[in-house]
Amino acid sequence: MLSCIVDAEILRKLVKASSILVDEAKIRTSSDGISMRAVDSANVAMVSFELGKDAFELYEADESEIGVDLHRLEEILGIARKGDRVSITVSDDESMKIRIRNLSYTLSLIDPSSMRRDPRVPNLEFSAEVCTSGEDIDRAIRAASKISDYVILGVENDVFYIEAQGDAESMRFEMTKDELFELKGGNARSMFSLDYLSDMSKSFRSSPEVRIHLGTDYPVKITFPVTASGEVSYLLAPRIESE
Amino acid sequence: MLSCIVDAEILRKLVKASSILVDEAKIRTSSDGISMRAVDSANVAMVSFELGKDAFELYEADESEIGVDLHRLEEILGIARKGDRVSITVSDDESMKIRIRNLSYTLSLIDPSSMRRDPRVPNLEFSAEVCTSGEDIDRAIRAASKISDYVILGVENDVFYIEAQGDAESMRFEMTKDELFELKGGNARSMFSLDYLSDMSKSFRSSPEVRIHLGTDYPVKITFPVTASGEVSYLLAPRIESE
Amino acid sequence: MLSCIVDAEILRKLVKASSILVDEAKIRTSSDGISMRAVDSANVAMVSFELGKDAFELYEADESEIGVDLHRLEEILGIARKGDRVSITVSDDESMKIRIRNLSYTLSLIDPSSMRRDPRVPNLEFSAEVCTSGEDIDRAIRAASKISDYVILGVENDVFYIEAQGDAESMRFEMTKDELFELKGGNARSMFSLDYLSDMSKSFRSSPEVRIHLGTDYPVKITFPVTASGEVSYLLAPRIESE
Repeated sequence: MLSCIVDAEILRKLVKASSILVDEAKIRTSSDGISMRAVDSANVAMVSFELGKDAFELYEADESEIGVDLHRLEEILGIARKGDRVSITVSDDESMKIRIRNLSYTLSLIDPSSMRRDPRVPNLEFSAEVCTSGEDIDRAIRAASKISDYVILGVENDVFYIEAQGDAESMRFEMTKDELFELKGGNARSMFSLDYLSDMSKSFRSSPEVRIHLGTDYPVKITFPVTASGEVSYLLAPRIESE
Repeated sequence: MLSCIVDAEILRKLVKASSILVDEAKIRTSSDGISMRAVDSANVAMVSFELGKDAFELYEADESEIGVDLHRLEEILGIARKGDRVSITVSDDESMKIRIRNLSYTLSLIDPSSMRRDPRVPNLEFSAEVCTSGEDIDRAIRAASKISDYVILGVENDVFYIEAQGDAESMRFEMTKDELFELKGGNARSMFSLDYLSDMSKSFRSSPEVRIHLGTDYPVKITFPVTASGEVSYLLAPRIESE
Repeated sequence: MLSCIVDAEILRKLVKASSILVDEAKIRTSSDGISMRAVDSANVAMVSFELGKDAFELYEADESEIGVDLHRLEEILGIARKGDRVSITVSDDESMKIRIRNLSYTLSLIDPSSMRRDPRVPNLEFSAEVCTSGEDIDRAIRAASKISDYVILGVENDVFYIEAQGDAESMRFEMTKDELFELKGGNARSMFSLDYLSDMSKSFRSSPEVRIHLGTDYPVKITFPVTASGEVSYLLAPRIESE
């Protein structure tokens, strides 16, 4: 059903980006590559990833679903060192064989039919789109999380901003159109929980390019590449701003 | 009232050196620079600092007092990276505007009249004065804190020593006049709480030059520069040695 | 009775390798060097070390026993920096004088007659012997400890293996005769507690050469050098495999 070899670090990034939201995941395999989509138990955030067959050193797969415990897979991949490749083989519904150098693992699979259904991807139209480095966003989110549990992301007059309001202090991060890699669309302003954004930020902070899609009192969609043909995407519901 | 730009690291060092003893501080501004003086709640230790206008890239100030929460200020300055400058503006009694790169903060100020009065600086005459690297002192203080809660600092026959006595072991650190940068005066011997000295030591351990003023059963005064025209000074009351 | 100077790091490694099993130790001194042998309180594991006089910069000693608190000695040696030498003097039954740079310690000794007798070294014949880097073994042991409390070490058909079985996953690490520095003897297979092996592994993981002696349902003996004339040896009792 699946036989592939890939840089262990790439797979680890995808798994880690997903495991902040869900414990288990149904990974879909096809002749084009692997993909995953899942919603957290509170139905507030969705994560999805795609990894095209070009990202693999070797890739052979049928159309199928593989149910895995993301935390166990993440721990196994954590044993890999920089540059290690991981070889993965799934030949039945029972188990996944994972090989990293001299280490081989057999990981029991989860029956996909016992898992939550794949979430429907909502049809969204964003009013603004921003592209900048993960490091910039992460820095602003860490600053915000020191003073509040919520943060506002917005665009106003060609300025992208991140705002937070604490008891005794307020914070505002701004990047003008010139400082951003890209800024498209008009104004937007939505509030989000830092519980979610801080975890997400750890996944994309080392990414040179993070794309943020915004609206007003609207979900945010954050996408970033982990390799040439692999991408992670987060969707996070807004909090209602009470003023 | 205050408008200045300074290396964020310099300001962070001053704030951190102070926040080990007090949560809030009244920072005095004048045309010459800023300064602060405060005593810990147990009245055992005093910290003061001065930062001359030459340390600033831009400096404009009236004579005034600014009441700040040191821990919040420290956390904000912690967002800065090596080489970042911080711009600070106080234009009313209500708030301080802090800007580091694309991040701007508004920090509520504390009414200085609601805070403790500035401590009186006692008139002290020390019998000995020692100058050496912060690293040497820190190493001896860390060694002492592994075996006791108290430490003795002294000078005897042109030898500076740090002593501690544990249940099953004792420790003595010595530096001769030749090994020290400077040794002035005669003998001295006083005991201090390692609770205080260990915290202070973290502030000066990376300082190439720390000056220690001693007496017998007498306070210790420890001063170290953080930049050419900025200095921190600690004053710590002795413990009575029971023998 | 003992007067010696040695690289502090060498002594620290010996003390740390021992302190994972015992709190106190009787160090034997003779004209040839120092040695130690002790069994943990559960009688499951033994540690011994030898440090020949050639490892010392200066070495003078009578035949004697010195009872020391290993944790206190380890803490004192932890103050040393890379390249620091430690000077040790024992001139009576009461105390050990330790000097590292400008720091001198006096550590109370423990009366050796009040301590447990030196363990008898069992007469063991191992069926297999493996030599590889500490890093390889440590990696496999860390991988095993993520999924189980026990691990199997074995040799089968000229392949050295480390196996663990978790609830939902199993792991197997293999090194062929070609990948090992050395492989002698025939087959072997024994199970051990990871509580012990994980601690031992921290002591030898930076060692370029670790020697493992195995049998079937038999103790394991692990030896590794800490310097040219100094060696640590662990002996660990097997767990009975219930299948």
